[in-house]
Amino acid sequence: MSYPHRHLLGIEPLHPSEITTLLDLADSYADKNRTADKHGTALKGLTQINMFFENSTRTQASFEIAGKRLGADVMNMAMQASSIKKGETLIDTAMTLNAMHPDLLVVRHPQSGAVDLLAQKVNCAVLNAGDGRHEHPTQALLDALTIRRAKGRLHRLSIAICGDIAHSRVARSNIMLLGKMENRIRLIGPPTLMPAGIAEFGCEVFDNMEEGLKDVDVVMMLRLQKERMDGGFIPSEREYYHRYGLDAEKLSHAKPDAIVMHPGPMNRGVEIDGTLADDINRSVIQDQVEMGVAVRMAAMDLLARNLVSNRG
Amino acid sequence: MSYPHRHLLGIEPLHPSEITTLLDLADSYADKNRTADKHGTALKGLTQINMFFENSTRTQASFEIAGKRLGADVMNMAMQASSIKKGETLIDTAMTLNAMHPDLLVVRHPQSGAVDLLAQKVNCAVLNAGDGRHEHPTQALLDALTIRRAKGRLHRLSIAICGDIAHSRVARSNIMLLGKMENRIRLIGPPTLMPAGIAEFGCEVFDNMEEGLKDVDVVMMLRLQKERMDGGFIPSEREYYHRYGLDAEKLSHAKPDAIVMHPGPMNRGVEIDGTLADDINRSVIQDQVEMGVAVRMAAMDLLARNLVSNRG
Amino acid sequence: MSYPHRHLLGIEPLHPSEITTLLDLADSYADKNRTADKHGTALKGLTQINMFFENSTRTQASFEIAGKRLGADVMNMAMQASSIKKGETLIDTAMTLNAMHPDLLVVRHPQSGAVDLLAQKVNCAVLNAGDGRHEHPTQALLDALTIRRAKGRLHRLSIAICGDIAHSRVARSNIMLLGKMENRIRLIGPPTLMPAGIAEFGCEVFDNMEEGLKDVDVVMMLRLQKERMDGGFIPSEREYYHRYGLDAEKLSHAKPDAIVMHPGPMNRGVEIDGTLADDINRSVIQDQVEMGVAVRMAAMDLLARNLVSNRG
Repeated sequence: MSYPHRHLLGIEPLHPSEITTLLDLADSYADKNRTADKHGTALKGLTQINMFFENSTRTQASFEIAGKRLGADVMNMAMQASSIKKGETLIDTAMTLNAMHPDLLVVRHPQSGAVDLLAQKVNCAVLNAGDGRHEHPTQALLDALTIRRAKGRLHRLSIAICGDIAHSRVARSNIMLLGKMENRIRLIGPPTLMPAGIAEFGCEVFDNMEEGLKDVDVVMMLRLQKERMDGGFIPSEREYYHRYGLDAEKLSHAKPDAIVMHPGPMNRGVEIDGTLADDINRSVIQDQVEMGVAVRMAAMDLLARNLVSNRG
Repeated sequence: MSYPHRHLLGIEPLHPSEITTLLDLADSYADKNRTADKHGTALKGLTQINMFFENSTRTQASFEIAGKRLGADVMNMAMQASSIKKGETLIDTAMTLNAMHPDLLVVRHPQSGAVDLLAQKVNCAVLNAGDGRHEHPTQALLDALTIRRAKGRLHRLSIAICGDIAHSRVARSNIMLLGKMENRIRLIGPPTLMPAGIAEFGCEVFDNMEEGLKDVDVVMMLRLQKERMDGGFIPSEREYYHRYGLDAEKLSHAKPDAIVMHPGPMNRGVEIDGTLADDINRSVIQDQVEMGVAVRMAAMDLLARNLVSNRG
Repeated sequence: MSYPHRHLLGIEPLHPSEITTLLDLADSYADKNRTADKHGTALKGLTQINMFFENSTRTQASFEIAGKRLGADVMNMAMQASSIKKGETLIDTAMTLNAMHPDLLVVRHPQSGAVDLLAQKVNCAVLNAGDGRHEHPTQALLDALTIRRAKGRLHRLSIAICGDIAHSRVARSNIMLLGKMENRIRLIGPPTLMPAGIAEFGCEVFDNMEEGLKDVDVVMMLRLQKERMDGGFIPSEREYYHRYGLDAEKLSHAKPDAIVMHPGPMNRGVEIDGTLADDINRSVIQDQVEMGVAVRMAAMDLLARNLVSNRG
């Protein structure tokens, strides 16, 4: 299989064929995860360290399960808030862990670019589990696998990404991945939550849900990232839900078989109507979580193959 | 072996023969745990998630060791206090974990009935590690195994359960289990710490330790659950110890070979005299902890056999 | 191999030949840790519990990786600050864990002697991961292995230990180990940070870096232990760095090939110049971390062999 990268830092450097390779492998892990024998040996003998400088129950659990199911020795490091104040400390901490010879380092950090910086310093494979507003590649990959399994393909789809685009690394990684696979992307949200330089993404932009959702195949909602809106505009939740929250009425403008996605954790009644989120005929939100484990297994498996072949 | 249940939510639905089946298997695990080869394969390939919405160093450690010794991939989720405010969030969190396809979900929650509710939503085996004032089935099972090993039998014994009965899920599960196995149960404590509707349990009730302990085979002390006494009567510790704390004098009213139990962690000098708690001729408190690991291994082993056979 | 001890509580009881045995085994683990197959079976079937009553990201991670790489079932217990107030509670907690039949118990505790006390109560092998100002044996062993690999020998070297000697269990364990191996030890620091009864250690004492470092082979810096300076003298960081912080100028008094060590985490610009700490031609600080995992693997392996042979 062709996957020549040493790290998984973002979607940006990936070729479409590499994305397909990774999703094909993830597909087989997704099937295996539904059986009673979930445990494999692809990472046997290897050490995986999860370094989360931001709390994330869901993503950390997903990487931990993925690594353990592949036979890795997995260790979680709860990095205290105090240790992230200086860039220097991040590197000191990383170099210390690096000296313990991990093979895979999974890193989440609140600053954009911090994971790239760290990857230059260590001599193991680094997986970006989300850095600031920059990238969250495994989220985009799990979204892609969810779409491919629901729609039967991952190209020539019309996909709406809705809400707080400006603060979302999920949106950023998804726009890149879905663009590479030749889908049509619409961004919907209030102008205050659109990023500067939106034109260069090559997407259509809407500030009206009814128009933006017209005839789309996929509706991808985002979480309101209030923790990243430092000093800027914070909408009232009631007003936001009225205009941009997804409910059955707004969804009726999309294709009749359009699927509904959300990266979680959801603010029910703010970004999405709770009943719609639970409607298994439309919502694939649980599938996204399920595919998350499979995609992370595939990513670590591919990186480990390179590690092993490079060394020996 | 006969154990037809999908979950272990409480003692209530268990048939006496199922209790015996589980204790017999736990007995063999207790022996194996004393050797240098403690590691087995009964849960190999399976994923166990521990979700503790209440802190419990002891019970969580016991389930974690039990799962690891049986070869499971074990993951602890530290559920933050903030995430338990809405019942809705419990279900969202559970559904997210469920989508990662755990096979065994061990849950402790401060609300009675929360674990039952959760078990209806997920498609894995759920073990109740304590829910509010409702049930704590593995505690009752480990107490039963401790008694059976100390006394040679688990029927026709006279057993006193002493202290804060009203707030105790340990008492509730023990009363059910020991009643099913045809023992005579005495409840001893201040009337304010007796549950409403005590008559229906079919136990004798005392508010005097000397009378209540007369000729019993087993003295089971309870922890004062101050954290569950919202707004109600809170006794002074000194007064409580004087009237209901177990010491050598009060114990002298029981049979000469009566054993002393406590589920831990102990408030020494409140519920029990420290010297008596450490007296290995009378106290089986360390045995209870030891049997805890064995009972949890047996419970997870039996549930996993059903999982595997149900799936084909 | 000869290693007759049941525990690893300190350097003090070790014979030089036992130290050599342990370092030889650690050497082979250090080599194995650099390969893609780091996982062994020396602790297979055994249970290791890490009980840290003081926070330590680095040391706990090192013991955790060491145990997992040797196939142990490893469990971390985060002991809350509240549970260390009474010595009684330490023993209750230890006895509870002991009843779960761990084979290896790794303990860090803020009180000198607490780990020795605990080792008398339990029936498993105890490893001291640092107790108060008393001992930190695995740190001294990893320092010894680092020196031996850098210098080709561990005897007849001139070694300076610099800084806060008085509050340092690292210094205490290192002085004993390096003395047993027949090295010449110099202690350098302000008189207020020298321990009482320093004469009995048999070291030369200096309060001037330039004099003390003259012609030494190894410069071992210590961390300022402000958290242990209760009520005593606390130097200003600027003044401390000026007089006792290691920089290129002060280092020029040592031998041209002298190596620089620090147990971490470093206060850059207080104990040591940041550029010098990162200079891979002089600093072996990352090697110390790397040897830490290897030394802990060797220590647990040797203790486990005794456990197994004693039992059967």
